[in-house]
Amino acid sequence: MQKSPAAGAGPAPAYAELTRVHSRLHRYNHVASIVGWDRNAMMPPGGNEARAAAEAELHALIHRTRTDPRLAEWLRAAEAEPLDAFARANLREMRRDWREANALPDSLVEAKTLAGARCEHAWRTQRPANDWRGFLENFREVVRLSREEAKLLANETGLSRYDALMDRYEPGVRAADIDRLFGEVRQWLPDLIRRAQAKQAREPVVAPKGPFRVAAQRALNLEVMTLLGFDFSAGRLDESAHPFSGGVPEDVRLTTRYNEDDFARSLLGTIHETGHARYEQNLPRDWLGQPVGTARSYGVHESQSLSFEMQLARSRPFIGLLAPMLVRHFGNQPALEPDNLYRLWTRVKPGFIRVDADEVTYPAHVILRYEIERPLIEGEIEAEDVPALWDEKMQALLGLATAGNYKDGCLQDAHWSDGAFGYFPSYTLGAMYAAQWFAAIRRAVPDLDALIAAGDLAPVFSWLRANIWSQACLWETPELVRRASGEALNPRHFRAHLEKRYAG
Amino acid sequence: MQKSPAAGAGPAPAYAELTRVHSRLHRYNHVASIVGWDRNAMMPPGGNEARAAAEAELHALIHRTRTDPRLAEWLRAAEAEPLDAFARANLREMRRDWREANALPDSLVEAKTLAGARCEHAWRTQRPANDWRGFLENFREVVRLSREEAKLLANETGLSRYDALMDRYEPGVRAADIDRLFGEVRQWLPDLIRRAQAKQAREPVVAPKGPFRVAAQRALNLEVMTLLGFDFSAGRLDESAHPFSGGVPEDVRLTTRYNEDDFARSLLGTIHETGHARYEQNLPRDWLGQPVGTARSYGVHESQSLSFEMQLARSRPFIGLLAPMLVRHFGNQPALEPDNLYRLWTRVKPGFIRVDADEVTYPAHVILRYEIERPLIEGEIEAEDVPALWDEKMQALLGLATAGNYKDGCLQDAHWSDGAFGYFPSYTLGAMYAAQWFAAIRRAVPDLDALIAAGDLAPVFSWLRANIWSQACLWETPELVRRASGEALNPRHFRAHLEKRYAG
Repeated sequence: MQKSPAAGAGPAPAYAELTRVHSRLHRYNHVASIVGWDRNAMMPPGGNEARAAAEAELHALIHRTRTDPRLAEWLRAAEAEPLDAFARANLREMRRDWREANALPDSLVEAKTLAGARCEHAWRTQRPANDWRGFLENFREVVRLSREEAKLLANETGLSRYDALMDRYEPGVRAADIDRLFGEVRQWLPDLIRRAQAKQAREPVVAPKGPFRVAAQRALNLEVMTLLGFDFSAGRLDESAHPFSGGVPEDVRLTTRYNEDDFARSLLGTIHETGHARYEQNLPRDWLGQPVGTARSYGVHESQSLSFEMQLARSRPFIGLLAPMLVRHFGNQPALEPDNLYRLWTRVKPGFIRVDADEVTYPAHVILRYEIERPLIEGEIEAEDVPALWDEKMQALLGLATAGNYKDGCLQDAHWSDGAFGYFPSYTLGAMYAAQWFAAIRRAVPDLDALIAAGDLAPVFSWLRANIWSQACLWETPELVRRASGEALNPRHFRAHLEKRYAG
Repeated sequence: MQKSPAAGAGPAPAYAELTRVHSRLHRYNHVASIVGWDRNAMMPPGGNEARAAAEAELHALIHRTRTDPRLAEWLRAAEAEPLDAFARANLREMRRDWREANALPDSLVEAKTLAGARCEHAWRTQRPANDWRGFLENFREVVRLSREEAKLLANETGLSRYDALMDRYEPGVRAADIDRLFGEVRQWLPDLIRRAQAKQAREPVVAPKGPFRVAAQRALNLEVMTLLGFDFSAGRLDESAHPFSGGVPEDVRLTTRYNEDDFARSLLGTIHETGHARYEQNLPRDWLGQPVGTARSYGVHESQSLSFEMQLARSRPFIGLLAPMLVRHFGNQPALEPDNLYRLWTRVKPGFIRVDADEVTYPAHVILRYEIERPLIEGEIEAEDVPALWDEKMQALLGLATAGNYKDGCLQDAHWSDGAFGYFPSYTLGAMYAAQWFAAIRRAVPDLDALIAAGDLAPVFSWLRANIWSQACLWETPELVRRASGEALNPRHFRAHLEKRYAG
């Protein structure tokens, strides 16, 4: 018999040390996710102060673990160890995590957290009061600190400042890509919106008439989640003021909000979150606990929710499946006819508010934000320039005037007040990825619509599982896209999808 | 201007270090409590494996924090620092916590946890199968390790072995006290049970007729919790298979279980848990985060739940308050007449099962367990002797034969399989404390019953707040009892309470 190697002295001891630290981090993050979910979905208001202290303690622990000085040495040593491709990918993601945790001095992280919290908190009352001047006072500091952050991250990564911020949400995607992608969409979008509206003006719709009881809505949501393959042995659906998808891959917690006058918002929102949830629930179980086993990026995540909500749920074949379920839960009424539901759920109407936007006008909202936040971070414009630019771009993209109407303009989102610059492109990248996934699925499964209409969603789930879910963080986003769909991200698929659905 | 002292160099630097560690522990424990509640009340089964790993990681962290080698030195140094009475009490509790975490080698803690988990897990199927022999195989190891634990704790504390175990649940109370208290109860209890049964044989009762809808039961529970002062801005009521009181003082999580044939079990159980909850919710906020700010003991905690359930809720004046609420939620029926409810809820009937026992026969179940577990830990009897002793004592105390009927005998509780020796006395200590508290309240408020009947519970809550809740861990249990009620624990009050209610 051979002697077994000394404990910890395998072929890659530094890598082994790193995996141990990340297993521990994964468990700490599990706990942080569950208490975070609880805070949003369950916690009574009086628990807030103690919970904030407890969560801060836990996040400080997580931060200490991610910035353990030994990690730098292990990362260096592991680079020289004999690792297979999987371990190399894991090591790449470990380095990304390390860089994210270590690139910024604690003082800057703390200052930005404080400034963001102050700005976001004041925003809650400034928005309804349309108080741009008040907002600006706090916002300038958020911008200043975000630029500082971008500069340090840029130095660390060799990227441009905006790219360095965006890389945290969309690894491997650069502003040059976004410029090209969004620049193209900008060309055809306004005309498509006009044509869609002209076409729809000739198509009358009937509005559903409530009340739609909460218990019936909840039962419907649970049934649709089951149809969409949500695993209730590894997740829950609850209520919260601001719907979100939380928890951990092994136990995904979705939330929704009910309004008895309008079942569609909760239903479509739940379908959206179910897309996020299935991604998490189907990440490779063997890799869980390591960075390589996590979801790829914000944009890829959004591509799952939009695959479910936009590509599947708002399609005519899927609505044909849904309509009898609606009738079963709510009783019959003309508005629940499939053709009417399809018209309702694909209605195009330019509006001020991003989160209320339809599928066609949504990208305009995102392009506008990207075209403002990028120069803002790069120092080409200042915080006080935002409203005029907003108004100008809103006019150009959607034909809407917002001058002086800050609350429905640049004060509508919380992202900037929180300092989350670089995040917005992910929404439209997600819509583009989703269209590209479905183009690939249709190439592989030509009779897809007939299968969906018959209730057979397995081909969709199989494709997503094989090409996205099971791949986790094995590849950077551009490589994942190429492997999944045979080409780089190509906005042609998104355009074709919108043309077919809205102007066909 | 004077120079400010160097950071951390106050009058009691070692004590200050200790308070910092305990603040951190308090926050870690907050997180552990919430995820523990979530596991029991919310988690889907598929989340179990990942959650177990996450909780184990968190508990390992808590254990490392409690066994930090610097603590021993700080505790020694703090003893010599100039501390006020409050800090002295806190230091005493810090030392108790330290001793509990450090007295036992990790290997023993781990072995006992494993043996307990194995025994408890097998017990779940062995109990329904009446399989004492199978249980015994695992149980012997649990007893062996519990004796080992008791020996080490006894060496550390200078107490006897059983005392050392019991001190973890009931600080300052000794087996000599329990012998005296339970010995006395043993004298008068069997006769009281006979007299109560004879009296009740002449009092017919009408059984409530269901179904009692879950929604109505829940609404009733919430209303009664409100009447009892539960702060819903700092807590919740949910459902779980095994009702419990969890969460943290700032956010108390109660659970209950509904049965549509029987509203009383959930209602009285909720009232019981509300007693625990108000103790937690009213611990002094300024002390939270330090050991001195926690609830005193298991027995004192049980005295709060039993104050609410036994002293208040099952009293005739309180039932007069409840009855109209029941009628409002369930509709009227003869069984909901106050006099009938009172008879129903004070019915005495010796039975096999502790958790189903009424107020009068309950102490017999506890005395029996104490009289077996104490010699078992001290090595005077062995695990295989338990069934014969159980049968003998069940005959003597309640006149019931259990020979061969293990599932309704010594296999009924999970405490022993889990190795929780020393816990059982707390239940009856709690009942005795509760009776003593109410005797004191009645001395101070002679017209208490009239006030309760009129819905004025403030005198009860004020007394509990001033004498129990606000005192947290300032005193060891015997001193708390003396300060609150003017005398040491005296079973005379418990006896008088039972005599008046059941044989008066």
